[in-house]
Amino acid sequence: MITDVTAYMQEVGKKARRAAKEISRADTGLKNKALLAIADAIMADEARLVAENEKDLSAGREKGLDAALLDRLELNAERIAGMAEGLRQMANLPDPVGEITNRSYRPSGIEVGKMRVPLGVIGIIYESRPNVTADAAGLCLKSGNATILRGGSEALYSNQAVAQCIQQGLTAAGLSEDVVQVIQTADRAAVGAMLKGKDFIDVIIPRGGKSLIERVSADSVVPVIKHLDGICHVYIDDKADLEKAHNIAFNAKTHRYGVCNAMETLLINEHVAHLVLPELAQEYIAEGVELRGDTEACSMVAEMHAATEDDWDEEYLAPVLAVKIVKDIDDAMDHISDHGSHHTDSIVTEDLNRARRFLREVDSASVMINASTRFADGFEYGLGAEIGISTDKLHARGPVGLEGLTTQKYIVIGEGHIRV
Amino acid sequence: MITDVTAYMQEVGKKARRAAKEISRADTGLKNKALLAIADAIMADEARLVAENEKDLSAGREKGLDAALLDRLELNAERIAGMAEGLRQMANLPDPVGEITNRSYRPSGIEVGKMRVPLGVIGIIYESRPNVTADAAGLCLKSGNATILRGGSEALYSNQAVAQCIQQGLTAAGLSEDVVQVIQTADRAAVGAMLKGKDFIDVIIPRGGKSLIERVSADSVVPVIKHLDGICHVYIDDKADLEKAHNIAFNAKTHRYGVCNAMETLLINEHVAHLVLPELAQEYIAEGVELRGDTEACSMVAEMHAATEDDWDEEYLAPVLAVKIVKDIDDAMDHISDHGSHHTDSIVTEDLNRARRFLREVDSASVMINASTRFADGFEYGLGAEIGISTDKLHARGPVGLEGLTTQKYIVIGEGHIRV
Repeated sequence: MITDVTAYMQEVGKKARRAAKEISRADTGLKNKALLAIADAIMADEARLVAENEKDLSAGREKGLDAALLDRLELNAERIAGMAEGLRQMANLPDPVGEITNRSYRPSGIEVGKMRVPLGVIGIIYESRPNVTADAAGLCLKSGNATILRGGSEALYSNQAVAQCIQQGLTAAGLSEDVVQVIQTADRAAVGAMLKGKDFIDVIIPRGGKSLIERVSADSVVPVIKHLDGICHVYIDDKADLEKAHNIAFNAKTHRYGVCNAMETLLINEHVAHLVLPELAQEYIAEGVELRGDTEACSMVAEMHAATEDDWDEEYLAPVLAVKIVKDIDDAMDHISDHGSHHTDSIVTEDLNRARRFLREVDSASVMINASTRFADGFEYGLGAEIGISTDKLHARGPVGLEGLTTQKYIVIGEGHIRV
Repeated sequence: MITDVTAYMQEVGKKARRAAKEISRADTGLKNKALLAIADAIMADEARLVAENEKDLSAGREKGLDAALLDRLELNAERIAGMAEGLRQMANLPDPVGEITNRSYRPSGIEVGKMRVPLGVIGIIYESRPNVTADAAGLCLKSGNATILRGGSEALYSNQAVAQCIQQGLTAAGLSEDVVQVIQTADRAAVGAMLKGKDFIDVIIPRGGKSLIERVSADSVVPVIKHLDGICHVYIDDKADLEKAHNIAFNAKTHRYGVCNAMETLLINEHVAHLVLPELAQEYIAEGVELRGDTEACSMVAEMHAATEDDWDEEYLAPVLAVKIVKDIDDAMDHISDHGSHHTDSIVTEDLNRARRFLREVDSASVMINASTRFADGFEYGLGAEIGISTDKLHARGPVGLEGLTTQKYIVIGEGHIRV
């Protein structure tokens, strides 16, 4: 039982700083060995993980947590195997640390380059999914960082159980178990200490619902890599191939609803709306998607509800779609600029110049031509793994893989060079 | 006279957002035209600039500002020509915006790449040097960003005068004058509005003394690119070429004192200290450098003062040097880790393995082998220009040039691709 959270967090911070030095210098082979050993420990410990998870689940049921939350909280055989498989895949990814680029000789005679290095200590603050514990710890480890993980209080037993597997794996590989520390208390003061802990944490990554992200970014004095909203648009241009438009618009909305890269607003050029919308609307409706449109869209589809101004700024994460008829590409880009969340936006057009303009002028983390917004994803982009999708502009933008967990330092090599 | 600062800053913010769109899309040629036109306007307006500057200088003299501050505040013919020349050089630099890299086809068939784009709106908060107005505005313009500049109240007339030249140049090139806005009031509430203005500013860069930087980074909810301390070390290894060691240690301290990349602490391996330190100390003393050493260093140099624990954490920015005798490279790296500011640290050694270890293990923005710390500079590194040197790890680390004022977005090109 931890009574003095401040003292406990100071100790955690000190250990993390020491461990960060160790893991930053560890060879790729050693880090991979640890990842595989953690995967083995997780597979060997399936029964205990399920039993510990059951404690959280029954407490959750008693507290009356809703079904969706209980589902996210659950660790079953499939999810446990998934955690282990994820770690094994990380072992196969190239190690970003140590890469030296941009080497050149300068007029003074010094050689200057950049070396990719870990960020140091990464704090992860997350909610109910206990698999994040293994997932985030693995990515941070592979990229040479120490980690401080703080999961939701409703998943405390599950997270501690996963943490034990991680510790076993680290020890088996001969690494300090402080490389990954899972906070041992449900006291919320621990989160506060992390948000103020700029001496011992280099970056905080919150993972969870919008209220968590907002709280973390409002209160943190440590830099935050975050994902806030995904209000994604597809714009169907009047020079679109209408079959492509149809398929992309349908896929971007209905492939999955609760994900940040699902389309929330469909923009259609007024010259082709009557050719696309009526048929597409019937398919959405057959799929159970509720449609909310502006006056013109409503005039084309009897089942369309009238959209309010709020609809343009809403991330539904649900089978609901806002539809707006726009005059032209400028009108579409203005709408995206005014109402989008700079996450992912796509144009459907066969016109080269409009495609180029959209690509250049739309200020979003992912900008697409003739592709479904659902492709905005670290795996689809070839990052191998993803710690999240950043809607920030600084440091990491869009899907964040191992490289986003590193930084670059300048290296300078001389032969006794001095400034004259 | 601006009475309602809140309303004024809201207006400034709105204009900046609009102008950011315009400048982000501007061709390189147009941006260069504006830079050259601003340079011309500055040269044509020399008399007015000097006259307006004189108002600030005489007010400063009345207020009893010290000589160093008055010197920084002064605009004379040479400095005015320097501003114009700096802008002309920026016109010659390659434009970072629009660069497309990392293009590849993914298994799904989509093509994914990254496009370099401006950050958006950059806020610069700076102190007495009015030449920062032209310098910072030029770098932000070249990198496609809109700028909100807030200079020190003691330089208000000078900054307004430079701002007029900037506005003339922007207009001459056919760009909106809102691309660069200089805050027209000395009211400190304007700074507060910038620090809270995350809706209209994407990043804040403070330039000035440590107290300014500390205040900005403590209070800002907008991301900050900052330079805090420069506690730079040179470590003379026992496998050093002693002539190189001598030259580098002397240059790193005495080339200039008031700069962030000057050496503040010299670490010498105990096996060679007696061969290097006595002679080197005499040269420092002849140059007027005060020496503060640990017991061992004091025992080798009669004129050496005893260092206190505080000396190891001090950025002197003055002809003062702390000297410590260390056991080996680990001892040196531990000292750097405990007392350094992660700015610039250099090892002098002929040993390949120690050089490699130092390069990899020292966690500083610039890590050097056999070179003077004074090389840590955007011009020396070939960035062409420098808005500052970042001691942060995220986004930009070390000297920040045009690229540091940009970000990358993902671009995805399909031919009707959908997720399956």
